[in-house]
Amino acid sequence: MKTDRDYMQLALDLAASAKGNTNPNPLVGAVLVKDGVIIGTGLHRKAGEPHAEVHAFKMAGEQAEGATLYVTLEPCSHFGKTPPCANLVKESKVARVIVAMQDPNPSVAGRGIQLLRDAGIEVEVGLLEQQARKVNERFIHNMVTERPFVVSKFAMTLDGKIAAHNGHSQWITSEAARADVHELRHEVDGILVGVNTVLKDNPQLTTRLKNRNGRNPVRVVLDSALQTPLEAQIAMTTEARTVIVTSFDASNEKKVALEKQGVVILQVSKTENGLDLDAVLKALYSFGITHLLVEGGGAVNASFLRSGLIDQYIVYVAPKVLGGARSIPPFTGEDVDSIDLAAQLQFEEVTQIGPDLRIIAYPKQVNENA
Amino acid sequence: MKTDRDYMQLALDLAASAKGNTNPNPLVGAVLVKDGVIIGTGLHRKAGEPHAEVHAFKMAGEQAEGATLYVTLEPCSHFGKTPPCANLVKESKVARVIVAMQDPNPSVAGRGIQLLRDAGIEVEVGLLEQQARKVNERFIHNMVTERPFVVSKFAMTLDGKIAAHNGHSQWITSEAARADVHELRHEVDGILVGVNTVLKDNPQLTTRLKNRNGRNPVRVVLDSALQTPLEAQIAMTTEARTVIVTSFDASNEKKVALEKQGVVILQVSKTENGLDLDAVLKALYSFGITHLLVEGGGAVNASFLRSGLIDQYIVYVAPKVLGGARSIPPFTGEDVDSIDLAAQLQFEEVTQIGPDLRIIAYPKQVNENA
Repeated sequence: MKTDRDYMQLALDLAASAKGNTNPNPLVGAVLVKDGVIIGTGLHRKAGEPHAEVHAFKMAGEQAEGATLYVTLEPCSHFGKTPPCANLVKESKVARVIVAMQDPNPSVAGRGIQLLRDAGIEVEVGLLEQQARKVNERFIHNMVTERPFVVSKFAMTLDGKIAAHNGHSQWITSEAARADVHELRHEVDGILVGVNTVLKDNPQLTTRLKNRNGRNPVRVVLDSALQTPLEAQIAMTTEARTVIVTSFDASNEKKVALEKQGVVILQVSKTENGLDLDAVLKALYSFGITHLLVEGGGAVNASFLRSGLIDQYIVYVAPKVLGGARSIPPFTGEDVDSIDLAAQLQFEEVTQIGPDLRIIAYPKQVNENA
Repeated sequence: MKTDRDYMQLALDLAASAKGNTNPNPLVGAVLVKDGVIIGTGLHRKAGEPHAEVHAFKMAGEQAEGATLYVTLEPCSHFGKTPPCANLVKESKVARVIVAMQDPNPSVAGRGIQLLRDAGIEVEVGLLEQQARKVNERFIHNMVTERPFVVSKFAMTLDGKIAAHNGHSQWITSEAARADVHELRHEVDGILVGVNTVLKDNPQLTTRLKNRNGRNPVRVVLDSALQTPLEAQIAMTTEARTVIVTSFDASNEKKVALEKQGVVILQVSKTENGLDLDAVLKALYSFGITHLLVEGGGAVNASFLRSGLIDQYIVYVAPKVLGGARSIPPFTGEDVDSIDLAAQLQFEEVTQIGPDLRIIAYPKQVNENA
C-alpha cells in the first residue's frame, strides 16, 4: 500500500528529472491518485511549456474528480506565460491537494493555496518540504534574493593547488571530471571569469555538450577597465552570448566596438575593491541569469568569498600533490589573521568521479532547522 | 555452510583487531576448523607474546589432529622471541594449512611453508592474499624497504590551507577530527616534525589517549643544526622518548647537553637540500620506528614529497574556506613547472568525521595487479 509520502516522492522525482531545463522557472512534479491508482503524472519540462499540473490533469481526464493531487510546489495563482494552475485544480474537482511547499515567488506566496481552500478543497502543505526546498534551492534563492544562485567551482590537487607557479594547469583533473564540469556548465545559465583569465588563457567558455537544451550558458566577464580585447574568443565567437560587466568609467569607444561584435555591456558602480559584486549579481539577474558558475582565478574567487556571495562550492580534488611555495591556490586576495575568520561551510556530498573526488559544500546554515 | 573464504575472513578480522599493538611484528590471525566446527582461534596481540597459531592450538588441544588451519601469514620458521610456529603446526598433526600470504620477512620467506610441505601437510597459499597484504601493508613495507612506513598527515581548509598567513591554525578541524588524529598517533611508533615547528609552537607531541598500549610514540625532530632548545617541551618532558636527527656537523656540546636530558641524538649525512631523508629513515628504522607520522610544516612535508618517501597520505579537510594570498599550504619547497610533475596518488577512502572529511590516499601503484 502506497502512502502520501510515496506519491510525493514520485512527484519530486518527476520534478528533478527536468533539472537544468526549466530556468527561470522552478522544477515541479505532479501526481494524481484515485482509489490507490495513479491516474495522472506530469512535470514542468521547460519555461513557456505547460506546468506539471496541466499534464497530470490532461492524462487523468474526467477521472480527476474526487482524486488527490500531489504537487511539489504550490499551484500558481497568477497569469504568467500560462494561465493559473490553481484555477485548473479547482475546476478539476479533486477532493484533496497535498503540496510539498508554498511558492516563494512573491506573486504567489500562499495565494494559490488560499484559492483552493476557499473553493472547499482540502489542502495540506509541507509533506517532504525539505526535499522540495532542496530540489528548487536555486529558484528559492532567486525569489528571495533577486540574485543568481552563485556556484564557486574549482579543480585542485590534494594539496590545494589550481595551477603550478607559472599558471600551468592542464590538466589537474581527469577527463571524467572535466566531462562532469561540462554537465555542470549545461545546468547553469551563466559562467563568470575575470578579465585576467580572458587575457591569459583566452578561453572559449562554451559547453562541449551540444545544446541539450538548445542553448549555451551566457559567458560573463568581470572587467572593470574594459580590457577585453576585441579579438578575444569570447568576443568573437557567437556560439554563446557574452556579457561584460564593467564600471561606469569604461571607455565608450571600446564599449561601442564590443557591442558591435554582439557583446552585451552592463555597467555597475565600483567599491574600493573593484566592481560592486552585489550590483554585478543584481545586473546579471536582471539580464536573466539565475544560476551562475564562477570559474575565476584566485582574485575573482576571493572577492566573491569575502563578499559572502557564494551559495554553493563544487570542488574537484585530484589525487595529486603538487607542492611548491609559489604554486597557485584557489583563493587569494586579502589575508585574514585567524582561522575563526574563514568562511564556514558544511559538506553536502562527496562523489568519486574517475580517479578524482567531487566535493559539494554550502555556506553553513546557522539555524538550518529553525 | 561456511567456506574456506569465510574462515580466512575471520582470521583476517582477528588479525586486524590488534591494529596498532603488534609493532614491529605483523598482525596475524588464525582459525582452526574440524568437521565444519571452529575448534580454535587466535591472534597475535603484541610483540613478545605468543603468535596467533599458539593461541589457536592451545584452544583446540588434541582436537587439532586432522583439522584445517587458516592463518593470515605464513607460520614462522625461525626462533625469535618465541619458538617457530611451523614446528608447532607440524607437531599438531593438522591435515591442511591455508595461508593467505607468504611472510615477506627475509628470514622466513617461504621456509615455513616448505617445512610444512616437507612434513606431508597439504598447504595452500594465496587465499584473500590482497586483503592480507592490506592488513600488513606497513609490516610488508618495513621488510621490503627497511624503512618506516611514512604517513604524511595534515589538516587543511577546503581551499588547501593549514594556517593563516601569521601561522594561526587553532583549530582548522573539529574536536572529532582531532580526536581521530590522537587515535592515529596511538597507532604509530614515531611522530616527526621539523625544528621550526619546535621553535615556533613548542609542542608536546604526546598522544592524549592514555597508553592503551603502555607507550607513547617516539617524538622525532629533524634538526640539522641542532637548534632544539634545552627548554623545549619535547626535550624536557619524559612522557615519551625524543629522538633528534641531526647532521655530523652538530655541536658536540649541545649534543651532550640534550643527551643528559634523556634525548637520543642520531646523526646522518646531509645532501644539498638538508638532511639525507633516506638516511634519516634508515636510522629511525634501526632505532625501532616502523610506522612514522610526519606532521611537518610545508618545508618538511615538501622534502618528504620530493624524495618520494611518503607511503600514505591522511588529510583532514575542514568545511572552511580561508582565502588570502599569503595563507599557508601543506607543502611548500621548490616549485615544479608542470602539473605532470605532481606526485600521482590514488584515493583509498573518504570518511566524514564530525563536520570534517578524512581522505586517505596512497602513491599510485603503476602495476598494482601485476
